[in-house]
Amino acid sequence: MTEPAFHPHRLTIRVYWEDTDAGGIVYHANYLNFMERGRTEMLRDLGVDQSRLRGEDGVIFVVKRLNLTYEGSAVLDDVLQVETSVAALGGASLTLHQNVMRDGIVLAAAEVVIVCVGDGKAKRIPQRIRDLFASRL
Amino acid sequence: MTEPAFHPHRLTIRVYWEDTDAGGIVYHANYLNFMERGRTEMLRDLGVDQSRLRGEDGVIFVVKRLNLTYEGSAVLDDVLQVETSVAALGGASLTLHQNVMRDGIVLAAAEVVIVCVGDGKAKRIPQRIRDLFASRL
Amino acid sequence: MTEPAFHPHRLTIRVYWEDTDAGGIVYHANYLNFMERGRTEMLRDLGVDQSRLRGEDGVIFVVKRLNLTYEGSAVLDDVLQVETSVAALGGASLTLHQNVMRDGIVLAAAEVVIVCVGDGKAKRIPQRIRDLFASRL
Amino acid sequence: MTEPAFHPHRLTIRVYWEDTDAGGIVYHANYLNFMERGRTEMLRDLGVDQSRLRGEDGVIFVVKRLNLTYEGSAVLDDVLQVETSVAALGGASLTLHQNVMRDGIVLAAAEVVIVCVGDGKAKRIPQRIRDLFASRL
Repeated sequence: MTEPAFHPHRLTIRVYWEDTDAGGIVYHANYLNFMERGRTEMLRDLGVDQSRLRGEDGVIFVVKRLNLTYEGSAVLDDVLQVETSVAALGGASLTLHQNVMRDGIVLAAAEVVIVCVGDGKAKRIPQRIRDLFASRL
Repeated sequence: MTEPAFHPHRLTIRVYWEDTDAGGIVYHANYLNFMERGRTEMLRDLGVDQSRLRGEDGVIFVVKRLNLTYEGSAVLDDVLQVETSVAALGGASLTLHQNVMRDGIVLAAAEVVIVCVGDGKAKRIPQRIRDLFASRL
Repeated sequence: MTEPAFHPHRLTIRVYWEDTDAGGIVYHANYLNFMERGRTEMLRDLGVDQSRLRGEDGVIFVVKRLNLTYEGSAVLDDVLQVETSVAALGGASLTLHQNVMRDGIVLAAAEVVIVCVGDGKAKRIPQRIRDLFASRL
Repeated sequence: MTEPAFHPHRLTIRVYWEDTDAGGIVYHANYLNFMERGRTEMLRDLGVDQSRLRGEDGVIFVVKRLNLTYEGSAVLDDVLQVETSVAALGGASLTLHQNVMRDGIVLAAAEVVIVCVGDGKAKRIPQRIRDLFASRL
């Protein structure tokens, strides 16, 4: 049996005091930080540098839509995994599936739609970047 | 013609440096902070004190699901309005509609499902709190 | 007896979930947010718009030095006051005294040195802004 | 020549969107997050688990005083090092020196006084923890 050709990008994250709230758990909005870090590291692993993308292509990726379900809670000192997969690729947009997990258990699951934006408008994703994303589909 | 009996709760918020990112706009996850403040102030206006709720009823409200669309961007120094309406009321849960707006234009719109939790499990919303929410439906 | 001519700028702030940590109190770094809001609102009250300052004068104010002592803790739902006074005025810099208080009790006290920066270098504070700060000394 | 017996604890950190502000650089308060992560990882490397410390010894470490100077700025995608050294050890307190650096250049340098707190009061640092800190002096 062979390893599947394409698998989610994985990032490991530690929970610090800054991530928690007075409920004793990770504050709900901070999962969006974890997922943003996961997307950034997936891009970096694909060879996409967001600072260069902005300088050279004049575009950035922005979050357009989020559909997020919380299944559990993380606490201080937890080690979490962020899994990021490319689910669909449009002309100017990209749909990702992201999970924040602890020991294989999903704590937060999201569908995130990202749009490529330049001069304040949706722009077609540069071809070399599209090809990279397509390789992860 | 009369004023509608029930209308969204409104909270005014100022955008500070802490809310922005290097894209020059409000960082996407921070809209969740604005919405959380809106929910907290709606609760406070209804007479619900979350610290007391936790102490006396042993329950807290946690976000279970978020469905959020970004329609525009806010920048430093903007004055924003957060509108919060009760859309549906279940036994242990509550669905809210929330908009973050600037000058009547929606920048972010969300459906947020909140669950009442005690001892780590979903608990029926205390009756006096249910009645308060029902009054806003 | 007359009101003192110059007194600290005061801003009222509410503590939300986002401000707290798993210790059940306001996370220590978030007092810097509260103080930054206090400085921004003092500037606004003096008629200084930081976005315009950046566009027209090509300068921004950045924090150079912080000397901060924590005297107490704030918790969820607290209403806090941020007091900001101009303590000293240099050519390119400004020293402020700031207190975060609850009911007249100081929770955090700081001396903050702010520098006027343009093109990555310290720049003389524009004269009209200097005059405004001098009026608060 | 031998390696010095005791050297600063080092933690490597990546700068993400969440850390930046509309000035295009890391928001000043977020260096406190980086330093807190450095302290937490130094404790972890010494074998001190803050969750256990709280559960078993009934104490936590809180920041009492910060003296911080900003020498430079970090930007998106930077890789930073946080260096943490024990500078002095009191009965209930601890003084640390911390630097946030990029490529050997100090961007922010701080002296941080930490106090051991239990039941809302300063408490003597548990002896086994004192011994661990002393080993780093």
